Amino acid sequence: MIMSRIEAPRSEDTAATGNLLDLLLGGLPAEAVLTDPDVTASYAHDMASFCPAGSPAVVVLPRTVEQVQHVMRTATALRVPVVPQGARTGLSGAANASDGCIVLSLTRMDRILEINPVDRIAVVEPGVVNAALSRAVGEHGLYYPPDPSSWEMCTIGGNIGTASGGLCCVKYGVTAEYVLGLDVVLADGRLMSTGRRTAKGVAGYDLTRLFVGSEGSLGIVVRAVLGLRPKPPEQLVLAAEFASAAAACDAVCRIMEGGHVPSLLELMDRTTVKAVNAMAQMGLPESTEALLLAAFDTTAPAADLAAVGALCEAAGATQVVPADDVAESELLLQARRLSLTALEAVKGVTMIDDVCVPRSRLAEMLEGVDRIAGKYRLTIGVVAHAGDGNTHPTVCFDPADPDESRRARESFDEIMALGLELGGTITGEHGVGVLKKEWLAREIGPVGMEMQRAVKQAFDPLNILNPGKLF
Amino acid sequence: MIMSRIEAPRSEDTAATGNLLDLLLGGLPAEAVLTDPDVTASYAHDMASFCPAGSPAVVVLPRTVEQVQHVMRTATALRVPVVPQGARTGLSGAANASDGCIVLSLTRMDRILEINPVDRIAVVEPGVVNAALSRAVGEHGLYYPPDPSSWEMCTIGGNIGTASGGLCCVKYGVTAEYVLGLDVVLADGRLMSTGRRTAKGVAGYDLTRLFVGSEGSLGIVVRAVLGLRPKPPEQLVLAAEFASAAAACDAVCRIMEGGHVPSLLELMDRTTVKAVNAMAQMGLPESTEALLLAAFDTTAPAADLAAVGALCEAAGATQVVPADDVAESELLLQARRLSLTALEAVKGVTMIDDVCVPRSRLAEMLEGVDRIAGKYRLTIGVVAHAGDGNTHPTVCFDPADPDESRRARESFDEIMALGLELGGTITGEHGVGVLKKEWLAREIGPVGMEMQRAVKQAFDPLNILNPGKLF
Repeated sequence: MIMSRIEAPRSEDTAATGNLLDLLLGGLPAEAVLTDPDVTASYAHDMASFCPAGSPAVVVLPRTVEQVQHVMRTATALRVPVVPQGARTGLSGAANASDGCIVLSLTRMDRILEINPVDRIAVVEPGVVNAALSRAVGEHGLYYPPDPSSWEMCTIGGNIGTASGGLCCVKYGVTAEYVLGLDVVLADGRLMSTGRRTAKGVAGYDLTRLFVGSEGSLGIVVRAVLGLRPKPPEQLVLAAEFASAAAACDAVCRIMEGGHVPSLLELMDRTTVKAVNAMAQMGLPESTEALLLAAFDTTAPAADLAAVGALCEAAGATQVVPADDVAESELLLQARRLSLTALEAVKGVTMIDDVCVPRSRLAEMLEGVDRIAGKYRLTIGVVAHAGDGNTHPTVCFDPADPDESRRARESFDEIMALGLELGGTITGEHGVGVLKKEWLAREIGPVGMEMQRAVKQAFDPLNILNPGKLF
Repeated sequence: MIMSRIEAPRSEDTAATGNLLDLLLGGLPAEAVLTDPDVTASYAHDMASFCPAGSPAVVVLPRTVEQVQHVMRTATALRVPVVPQGARTGLSGAANASDGCIVLSLTRMDRILEINPVDRIAVVEPGVVNAALSRAVGEHGLYYPPDPSSWEMCTIGGNIGTASGGLCCVKYGVTAEYVLGLDVVLADGRLMSTGRRTAKGVAGYDLTRLFVGSEGSLGIVVRAVLGLRPKPPEQLVLAAEFASAAAACDAVCRIMEGGHVPSLLELMDRTTVKAVNAMAQMGLPESTEALLLAAFDTTAPAADLAAVGALCEAAGATQVVPADDVAESELLLQARRLSLTALEAVKGVTMIDDVCVPRSRLAEMLEGVDRIAGKYRLTIGVVAHAGDGNTHPTVCFDPADPDESRRARESFDEIMALGLELGGTITGEHGVGVLKKEWLAREIGPVGMEMQRAVKQAFDPLNILNPGKLF
């Protein structure tokens, strides 16, 4: 599977490719059209493991809406598949090239067009980097919450395509909740505006939301109106250690049932704590079976931490450490920030699952992952956005060992099956892409699949927009 | 226009109607099938003015999902249009019957199936009344925010169909943000599940959101998973009087730009204040050109009110009255609650517009409505969810006066044109229905309309689901 290629309409024929390039150059400057195979190969895939990728015929880097329209008109005329890309930090292969495709990189459309503190909106091009937007709005006392781990690299267009989440979702929700309106270039090159720049609006079907998480398969987002919030106070963090994962999950349930609204509620299991210890000597007790991190960005965070600390103790926490200030809070978050790097160091490569379950089933999920790790003789560390029930079981394996690679893939799949059994979803925030497309049907069933395909057909009747992804 | 009928596929022929009833009775108990014309006439329309309505062939009141499926299978077999209805409190004619249709009332499917305080969700049937759900979740310390004015009557299914808003949206958002997953009976009677019961989830296109606000034109919602929040503290209210609408709007901008998050931010213009005074002798100064109400449900609301009060004074408020407690807050809200009734009393009938503009353009909107009222020699009072820029210019007219009725309709349309000019939308929360369907194309343009129709076609190829609405 690793070596296989995405099946898709192809235009391998040299003459056809020559024709494609000629047509593209009719509406794009030469420097925006890359054909050197060494260069185009670097655009072949995102950061997912186990996902096939093909060789693009060409990579285009438009700077204007008109140039994107030209690319799509050309693609439609020649029936060439188009794979839209942001920073390629995705974890599901949704940005992987297919053979003979046009890779449409939106990274050069990176202007912040407007920041409006009264209307609390920003208007941006798709290539704006998440962190750049966050900093720019921060200067106006505003806050763009969605914060995927890759926020220093990933683009808003990519965030919209994959409906990204992050650490703050437990309080502030996901990307979808901040996308108010879009300009989209359709498969045939026409430009469509959806949504609004107002706080509310219900005129017609919500096509804006349909594009969020559509992985570039319905159209090319060329401009977005994003909702913003007032910047909250800096958050204060509490760390709590538990002698069992079940006790930590019990604490999560008590916190949420108790009506608390943490700005972050993260869980690391034993395997992750050990990996972080091994890498960074952070002094976490080796006896820790689970570490819970809770934060509050309220006006009186110390009181919130005290209340949540008491709930952790009631659930059996062996130690509760509330930070006194922002600097100490940052220290406590270090372990969480290092988790994925530390797990990667275990075997060289990881495969990060993204199963989200109702938070009342979190303990069963962690117990099940532990069982699966044993069954497949693998190291699987779990980092979870616990407040959302969104787990990232991270399978550590040596890609040079075929048997271990096979077991890694099988355990990865079994974790998804477990998530579905517990009333969850195969993907909380990473998307379907190539990695999970066989699983989508298992989650949403035949009628759902048929309607998903009908929507795809309505927007992209020639199936040239990121074919082979999602379905 | 008032007297015209909705054009739609018909089955007027008596034999055909007999056949329809026979088939319906094959899967529904007799008491769930109403055919007495006096009774069915009472299901002909919702609460919108100026909207044509036809005579239903039959009204059905299913109690189960299977019964809804039977109705839709029958409708598909006979090509009979189906008009889904909740409590018919809508304000755009979206629930109006068409001649010969099946009115599908979901009011008897009114069970709350689950309330889960750990997962913070409720699972409900569509006929549950908004207030009944609010009270039931309140007993668990939870909060279902969407609060349309009709909340004591309107149903969750209707709220989903129209994507309802309310007073709390400025802080808590609209219905769409609380719908996590749906069970939907499709046009052909098949059952589809969309979405999730988890906090996050991005598996496939977001079909859930597509149904929210679709006015029953894509499928019949038979079950909804709704997100809940912890119950906030009771809100404390401040009232501020201004010598001009522009000054009140300036205060709104200062409050939002200042990073405040009120739980309510409502504005009443001079005309509304006078109407309320005339009805209820509330002692509001007749010199008041605009009244602003702000509320906070934070842990320290008095401090928030003080800060917002200072901003109102800086914007030129002539009087600022912060409530000391919940009882006083309720008194201050009375004037707002009476607004629409008071405006109705002016001439007997009102037509309530629903234009939402960027809040930075609110002053221009109010000024424009005042100009339009003068031009058409009409009383038009504006009540606004000012924090959202969502205005309800309310045209008062005597329906027995044809010239005044014509001027009312024209002013209503001119207000929408003004909203679009200011970068707004023709409907912030009431929907398109019949009332605004000619306006939808003006807002979203020809490409948008084509894609809206393509989505409709994908879900309802025979055009039997609420035909003649939206488009």
